[in-house]
Amino acid sequence: MKLLHTLCQIAAPSGNEAPLSEFLLNYIQQNKERWKTQPTVLQGEEFQDCIILVFGRPRTAVFAHIDSIGFTVRYGKQLVRIGGPDAETGYQLVGEDAQGKIECTLVVSERDGALTYEYEREIERGTELTFRCDFRETDTTVQSCYLDNRLGVWNALRLCETLQDGVIVFSCWEEHGGGSVAYLAKYIYETYGVRQALISDITWVTEGVRPGKGVVISLRDSLIPRRSYVERIRRLAQEAGIPHQLEVEGSGGSDAKELQHGSQPWDWCFIGAPEDNVHSPDEIVDKRDIESMLALYQVLLQKL
Amino acid sequence: MKLLHTLCQIAAPSGNEAPLSEFLLNYIQQNKERWKTQPTVLQGEEFQDCIILVFGRPRTAVFAHIDSIGFTVRYGKQLVRIGGPDAETGYQLVGEDAQGKIECTLVVSERDGALTYEYEREIERGTELTFRCDFRETDTTVQSCYLDNRLGVWNALRLCETLQDGVIVFSCWEEHGGGSVAYLAKYIYETYGVRQALISDITWVTEGVRPGKGVVISLRDSLIPRRSYVERIRRLAQEAGIPHQLEVEGSGGSDAKELQHGSQPWDWCFIGAPEDNVHSPDEIVDKRDIESMLALYQVLLQKL
Amino acid sequence: MKLLHTLCQIAAPSGNEAPLSEFLLNYIQQNKERWKTQPTVLQGEEFQDCIILVFGRPRTAVFAHIDSIGFTVRYGKQLVRIGGPDAETGYQLVGEDAQGKIECTLVVSERDGALTYEYEREIERGTELTFRCDFRETDTTVQSCYLDNRLGVWNALRLCETLQDGVIVFSCWEEHGGGSVAYLAKYIYETYGVRQALISDITWVTEGVRPGKGVVISLRDSLIPRRSYVERIRRLAQEAGIPHQLEVEGSGGSDAKELQHGSQPWDWCFIGAPEDNVHSPDEIVDKRDIESMLALYQVLLQKL
Repeated sequence: MKLLHTLCQIAAPSGNEAPLSEFLLNYIQQNKERWKTQPTVLQGEEFQDCIILVFGRPRTAVFAHIDSIGFTVRYGKQLVRIGGPDAETGYQLVGEDAQGKIECTLVVSERDGALTYEYEREIERGTELTFRCDFRETDTTVQSCYLDNRLGVWNALRLCETLQDGVIVFSCWEEHGGGSVAYLAKYIYETYGVRQALISDITWVTEGVRPGKGVVISLRDSLIPRRSYVERIRRLAQEAGIPHQLEVEGSGGSDAKELQHGSQPWDWCFIGAPEDNVHSPDEIVDKRDIESMLALYQVLLQKL
Repeated sequence: MKLLHTLCQIAAPSGNEAPLSEFLLNYIQQNKERWKTQPTVLQGEEFQDCIILVFGRPRTAVFAHIDSIGFTVRYGKQLVRIGGPDAETGYQLVGEDAQGKIECTLVVSERDGALTYEYEREIERGTELTFRCDFRETDTTVQSCYLDNRLGVWNALRLCETLQDGVIVFSCWEEHGGGSVAYLAKYIYETYGVRQALISDITWVTEGVRPGKGVVISLRDSLIPRRSYVERIRRLAQEAGIPHQLEVEGSGGSDAKELQHGSQPWDWCFIGAPEDNVHSPDEIVDKRDIESMLALYQVLLQKL
Repeated sequence: MKLLHTLCQIAAPSGNEAPLSEFLLNYIQQNKERWKTQPTVLQGEEFQDCIILVFGRPRTAVFAHIDSIGFTVRYGKQLVRIGGPDAETGYQLVGEDAQGKIECTLVVSERDGALTYEYEREIERGTELTFRCDFRETDTTVQSCYLDNRLGVWNALRLCETLQDGVIVFSCWEEHGGGSVAYLAKYIYETYGVRQALISDITWVTEGVRPGKGVVISLRDSLIPRRSYVERIRRLAQEAGIPHQLEVEGSGGSDAKELQHGSQPWDWCFIGAPEDNVHSPDEIVDKRDIESMLALYQVLLQKL
């Protein structure tokens, strides 16, 4: 899990994904030789900070968002949310401005919930702060900030090792309103004719989804995917004997929102391990669910 | 109204429109010979469960959504809404899972409004439930679940009988966030150059819109159409002497949302009969408003 | 400021921008001869009521929305909002229906906030009302309804005088959910390869943004632009020595929403003077901020 640890430590809140994008490009360059199939790497200004890897003759695209939640310094000591981070007084935040590296403490007002930081000096307006990474691993679990979605990114990178045909997409802004999948999806559909998508992302432990019971196939969240596509995926998971759970939610979203609302007829399904302590510095995932997540993606990219 | 009765009985909640799509393809196949003009029928995977009919040299496209509201079975006996159905304890719901056909009863918690079902066994997770159809017809009214929007679909099918130039679109997901009109609109604009739209859907009886007073031309709902286009439609309705009412609302939406926000310069107008008991099993529409709806569409597809 | 005064007086609420569009086309026709570079003027039905001016070999596009907030007459004496106008009993509203010109008074119910008008006769359903323009100018300020965004339009027109390379876009519907930028952005990107945008619009005076302290470069509002693009703009503003302020907000939006969510990889940044008394008949802006706004746009269109 050294790769996952590294991924969790890189600050890349929505809008400033460049550092993680650079890391991924380096990682791909250094590791792709040992991959079964050599991908075409698409990147550059017309993809902003996103990356697309095209393997063989693709039928399915995997979307993993590389951005994270966080905070922006407003005026004085005020903070504004990037995405929907959990907020508790005492959370350690890190960042950097022109005056140097920052390690400060989050303070949540008991009166009105307003967010501020506690630090020895004033931080420059517009500076981004993210959770300090405290990566913890046991025999059965991993725990850290930003497993959502560095684990989805990790899953995609591991999938690359054996992938023959497929598209891997590293997207931006997912945690804060979206903004890259619309053009990525258009490019992929128009260039490769691919319209089947899997969303490699992390979901929630709930009363119906338990840690250790297998990767989650989501039947719906705030949006409803096309039934016939999700049924095909369920059948393939069953036939392969991979432990999995079915999720049914009325809220929550993912990169799939932009696929659903975009100008191409994408079928999509959210498939990911569930985590507890969502959007906090203490996100925790059961290793068995990570294992079945990767296994299911390997099967689906072959058979879908 | 036998066709309308049949349409109202077919379960096709958002995301699982395939059954109604199949029915429509069969209906079109069996009936198009007696239509004045033979359309090109566009369907298949690149249109998901949608259907496009192209007649002659089209200038205007009519959008009728084929999906309906409903409920998804969550965990235990919990239900999650598909779209915005009205919910009252005692409503009869129907569905089907691997164990067979289901007819159960909706229960709304008096404490917190939570939705559950009452049934002899547990229903499989992810199963969709829709209102049981109790179709009632009098000399002056029709009443059933899902007049919204099977009546809009019926209007479009009846329009086909005499249509010379135009596009008829059967769309999906309208009740639950949309998801097909963006790509349908792109295809139609890019292939046929059509950018005039009419939304064949059902609206609300309110203090300003009364049953029996004629089809409704909506001047706005949550969105505002381009004024000059709506004015042209009003003039044509007046010249033709077709009974109609003007609606002005601050909320509500339709397939027009995706036209308004899409990447083509569509002009659109919502035109449909008003109903009472909206989104319940007892939706009711005055037959005179159905008549003037079809009459207005016939005029507009000729003159717009 | 005679041009600005004229712009503020023209009624053009979202959906009915045609009157301002016509004025602009006339203005451009009459004035472009004295502009440094002659633009290509794109307009007509496929752009609805929008206008695009293309100068030289563009790298950057400036978006200025021409619509305004207002009210629609509903049933009886009820009013529905167009966009988010401030509402106070006594505000003077103007409009026109088939019976003639209207000048009436806004009434806000103290009980439930409901909006109505007071007038000698009933106004026709669907009629649009806008604030009566009371344009006030001092040595240091301008004050009027609709400085948002007639000042952004004014800035764009003044920019045209010296512009060599760039695209100027006059967009519609910004105040009420958007609806034109998606197709304008697609056209501009596909035709000219331009993907850098500046939003010429007006923002808010807040505790962190003060009148007279210079044009505002927004680091974020409800959406977060790509960090690397905004940083380039900040550096250019600093190098040019143009007075400016940095804004960090958690809410608010602009035409940038459609760029962010569209199917092209646009970089965007909101740059505009701040105003007080937002969305009221008494919007007020410091002239120094207008000056630095135009100066910054002139620099950026050259150097970006």
